[in-house]
Amino acid sequence: MTAHHSLLRTARRPLALLSAIVAIAVANAGAARGADDPEPKTRTLGIVLYPRFELLDVFGPAEMFGNLTGRVKLVMVAEKAGPVASAQGPKAVADFSFEDCPPLDMVLVPGGFGTIAELKNERLMDWLRDRSEKAEIVMSVCSGSALLAKAGLLDGHRATSNKQYFSLAVAQGPKVDWVKEARFVDDGKWVTSSGVSAGTDMALHVVERLYGAEVAEKVSNATEYQRQRDGSQDPFAKFLK
Amino acid sequence: MTAHHSLLRTARRPLALLSAIVAIAVANAGAARGADDPEPKTRTLGIVLYPRFELLDVFGPAEMFGNLTGRVKLVMVAEKAGPVASAQGPKAVADFSFEDCPPLDMVLVPGGFGTIAELKNERLMDWLRDRSEKAEIVMSVCSGSALLAKAGLLDGHRATSNKQYFSLAVAQGPKVDWVKEARFVDDGKWVTSSGVSAGTDMALHVVERLYGAEVAEKVSNATEYQRQRDGSQDPFAKFLK
Repeated sequence: MTAHHSLLRTARRPLALLSAIVAIAVANAGAARGADDPEPKTRTLGIVLYPRFELLDVFGPAEMFGNLTGRVKLVMVAEKAGPVASAQGPKAVADFSFEDCPPLDMVLVPGGFGTIAELKNERLMDWLRDRSEKAEIVMSVCSGSALLAKAGLLDGHRATSNKQYFSLAVAQGPKVDWVKEARFVDDGKWVTSSGVSAGTDMALHVVERLYGAEVAEKVSNATEYQRQRDGSQDPFAKFLK
Repeated sequence: MTAHHSLLRTARRPLALLSAIVAIAVANAGAARGADDPEPKTRTLGIVLYPRFELLDVFGPAEMFGNLTGRVKLVMVAEKAGPVASAQGPKAVADFSFEDCPPLDMVLVPGGFGTIAELKNERLMDWLRDRSEKAEIVMSVCSGSALLAKAGLLDGHRATSNKQYFSLAVAQGPKVDWVKEARFVDDGKWVTSSGVSAGTDMALHVVERLYGAEVAEKVSNATEYQRQRDGSQDPFAKFLK
């Protein structure tokens, strides 16, 4: 749980419990509105699912953005709506298909073993090109940047990918300025992260960029997350392949 | 992606791609069998879902255990099989109901705002008591320990919970030896973690206990996760409420 008040000592009493829940909801909504936040707009973040996506690539960022109550709305999208099995087995539900997905302010593309098959998925490539053009920010985690590169979207931009499959990403985008040593790379509209867990640090970086340092700190404290702020530091670069 | 070989430079050629995928599968299976691993048994880990569970409480540990190919099988279980909505919105699929869930070697109980409602769910309490009795290891993340405490399972044991709702857990289990300052607490069969992100460190601690340090390191390197090994260090204890 990620609220910021300790109002549940009386959780056994129904009325006190109801009050506590309301108070927590209000406190959480407040947490998403930092003093340094210039714009009260709610952004819709579309997270792309495909068969054999990597679980934490999706749910690390989803945890952080998903706790910006009233600020960011998460939608899960896949080629077809319905359950999608991850590389680790557990299934997540795509709320929308590519066709019926609502307008997206932000897009996040995860990696995973499924990346390899998706490199040949022209419907995904077309959808990424269409939605990226309209989006404010497009993010990828791990081998997700190989998909953005294959779609030609990262040409001329700085980007990174996971260390253990870096060559896969590079092979898809010879015109991309690939950064080998980086936890994440912010190139403005395009924000890409290194492998799996790095996506969570990237997400908090984007939270800070959009909503300010105070909001990012509240989210990381509430989720007890020990954030790596510096995108240029990469403790896993030594494993580059 | 989390494999340990760079075999995908030729990923555009179908046969080379197939060979690469097979090689990766073999390498991954190898990664799960450390030299210091005494026992080749496959364990089934049941992760409990309930409405308004916290995403990362579930999917941080699921990422780590789910990459122990051939070693750990993940199953998602809920009172009823099917989609279960998280506190952040995205839905995960419960493969099994409480009734048809296969035998479990390990059980993991997440936290989240839904914890409050589940404290009154006698079917969950009964199921937790039944499955915990038969399990080798029972884990909780965040306010999940409040549910284990309410079921009476932690009485006489050392346990922890998330910092921002610590008092909720304490209220459910006056006979529990609650540890206020801990990233995670290993009390043998019962392994509990602090809030949200702490569950991932707890998971890798259990991976190391069961399969050795080499396997835990391979998993954390492959997922580019900067692990906190010491369960007694708690950078968020200052937020205790």
